[in-house]
Amino acid sequence: MPAPSRRGLDAPSSPIRKLVPYADAARARGVNVLHLNIGQPDIETPAVMRAALTDYHDTVIAYGPSGGDAPFREALFAYYRRLGHALSPSDLIVTTGGSEAVFFALAACLDPGDEIAIPDPMYANYIGYAQLLGIVVRPIPTTVESGYHLPQDLDACIGPKTRAVLICNPSNPTGAVYTDAEMAAVVDLCARRDLFLIADEVYREFVYEGPLPKSVLAYPALGDRAVVVDSLSKRYSLCGARIGCLVSRHSGVMASAMKFAQARLSPPALAQVVAARATELAPDFFDVARDEYRRRRDTVFEGLKAIPGVLAHRPEGAFYQMARLPIDDGDTFVRFMLESFSKDGRTVMVAPGAGFYAEPGRGTDEVRIAYVLNTDDLALSMRLLGEGLEVYPGRRR
Amino acid sequence: MPAPSRRGLDAPSSPIRKLVPYADAARARGVNVLHLNIGQPDIETPAVMRAALTDYHDTVIAYGPSGGDAPFREALFAYYRRLGHALSPSDLIVTTGGSEAVFFALAACLDPGDEIAIPDPMYANYIGYAQLLGIVVRPIPTTVESGYHLPQDLDACIGPKTRAVLICNPSNPTGAVYTDAEMAAVVDLCARRDLFLIADEVYREFVYEGPLPKSVLAYPALGDRAVVVDSLSKRYSLCGARIGCLVSRHSGVMASAMKFAQARLSPPALAQVVAARATELAPDFFDVARDEYRRRRDTVFEGLKAIPGVLAHRPEGAFYQMARLPIDDGDTFVRFMLESFSKDGRTVMVAPGAGFYAEPGRGTDEVRIAYVLNTDDLALSMRLLGEGLEVYPGRRR
Repeated sequence: MPAPSRRGLDAPSSPIRKLVPYADAARARGVNVLHLNIGQPDIETPAVMRAALTDYHDTVIAYGPSGGDAPFREALFAYYRRLGHALSPSDLIVTTGGSEAVFFALAACLDPGDEIAIPDPMYANYIGYAQLLGIVVRPIPTTVESGYHLPQDLDACIGPKTRAVLICNPSNPTGAVYTDAEMAAVVDLCARRDLFLIADEVYREFVYEGPLPKSVLAYPALGDRAVVVDSLSKRYSLCGARIGCLVSRHSGVMASAMKFAQARLSPPALAQVVAARATELAPDFFDVARDEYRRRRDTVFEGLKAIPGVLAHRPEGAFYQMARLPIDDGDTFVRFMLESFSKDGRTVMVAPGAGFYAEPGRGTDEVRIAYVLNTDDLALSMRLLGEGLEVYPGRRR
Repeated sequence: MPAPSRRGLDAPSSPIRKLVPYADAARARGVNVLHLNIGQPDIETPAVMRAALTDYHDTVIAYGPSGGDAPFREALFAYYRRLGHALSPSDLIVTTGGSEAVFFALAACLDPGDEIAIPDPMYANYIGYAQLLGIVVRPIPTTVESGYHLPQDLDACIGPKTRAVLICNPSNPTGAVYTDAEMAAVVDLCARRDLFLIADEVYREFVYEGPLPKSVLAYPALGDRAVVVDSLSKRYSLCGARIGCLVSRHSGVMASAMKFAQARLSPPALAQVVAARATELAPDFFDVARDEYRRRRDTVFEGLKAIPGVLAHRPEGAFYQMARLPIDDGDTFVRFMLESFSKDGRTVMVAPGAGFYAEPGRGTDEVRIAYVLNTDDLALSMRLLGEGLEVYPGRRR
């Protein structure tokens, strides 16, 4: 039989999903698994959005334009206008989730063998898409000790083959929100070295202190180098709909991305019908969600602080918390929690940290916690984590 | 400013969609454009499927499993069982349309620099995805004179770097349905030369004479080399939903494809809810659609035969007709029909043929006609095409 491709064999497994079979097995044994491994909010998709499904009366669910349906595009342009960004029609392409926006951005900006510099740890799927496209990830090292903020000397993280910097702000998986000074340094770097600045801003509204972070679209010094990856998944609890967008004023990048978009014909029609209702949400919609997530963050962070041997930094945004645990190996620990630990019929699943690092060997004693459950369940989860650590055979003392 | 990637600049434009702006302009001038450029059926999405939207009561539109939601997967396994194919759970991954299935199949089977042999002309997006992935398309030449059927000497179309053959059966864009002898020759070739046989079978039910074509899953001689690209878009008029699947018994290919699937998290949830209702359709569902499309095919083919200088072969399946027209250039002709021709306020849009050929220079005097309108509109469209050809300045006499 022919062998599959090398790129398929070498593709990384998702640290978020690869251990799900152990969770399924635990559930089959009657264990209640608290899922903090994946950024799936428990918050309801707004009823006004779901109502679009009952109101759907097209008799043919037809292909739409490759760049997105007009009503949803209008909703997106209105959203960006409220953020202060005037966009032309060709500056925006609707994508099948933020995932496809990442894919289009990488493919349109970088060729095989080109390098992209990304703060490490990073959203694991950047690594997957880069590998699939033959792009080399050049990690910008960050550590839990400095709250996963950027190093001083960014130029040292850039080489002659580096074509782009990719940041996630607020950051999945670390929860870091880059300061004005950090953003100024990144913008200056990209302008000086003539690099694309790709910014994944899907957690834009999830910031728990101070004003919302500025989009990379708002830095004139970047010229047309800014490329924004966006998604409605987290903002409106629409993860399953698979809807997002790619935004850039770089006409060459957008012309390329449009050809990729045409190859997949159109983004999902039903998701667009639902997402177009965003214009009908109350102005305080994000405030309510933000207050809830702030409480959740505090619950998780306080819970972690109470566990001996855990090192964590309080996240400033998104809904993730990275933490260093007193363990030998994150994969083994997560499996242990699913296979060999339960208390009163319950256990907790987090994501092992190593899969979020591009640099080999890093993150083996870290985990990512998505705080996507209510505060009671999160407090319970942190207690279960602490009790699991007590009895875990690979615990470091 | 940094330049976009070479692969983005080199990406082909969609022959189906690139001239749509001219159609928009025609419509803006009040011209009624009959769209035969894209395979968007006018046939209704079955009401029982659309009813799934009114019945949708989940309060969170959440991520599902990367391989697809259980109810829709069950519907797919039942569908394949009825076709005679017993599949294991790991043999099938739900995809975001057939497009993503093509992408996963190519990425999982071939590395950059590898060759894939495909009958030429071909579905244009194969060329786009291959280029994006650094895969070299090796055309298997076919001609209108032989109804776009396969050449005798297939071995001559295979080289030392060829890793796979890709067929679309029934074929988009040609309408060819390969005979048992042709299929036996392709299967023999792939078994002898140890090649993957990737088959796009999304038009499986659209065959107008004789029994349905056998799936490549039904050839024991292939071993695990068979990889099926499937989509519900055409079968159930679900084009906009973006839902399909990848099927193979090759465990290495499917393990790779699952990693790619995890990188994009999950296929669209709402599309799966709708598509899972396929099990509730009446057994004669396809018979009704098939009879309608047979009448449409006959209308188009008879209409073309009546136009002087047109060379066409009656398609055996799918809902496309390639034709050689007495013209200098398909792109120019299609633009002419949109910009400079109308009769009683109407014109017709077809897809220029060159974009369906991987071999440079071929197909410039051909077009693809999608017979996706009712027979009256199709008959009118063929009359408009004939009258347009009469006055087209680039007509060859």
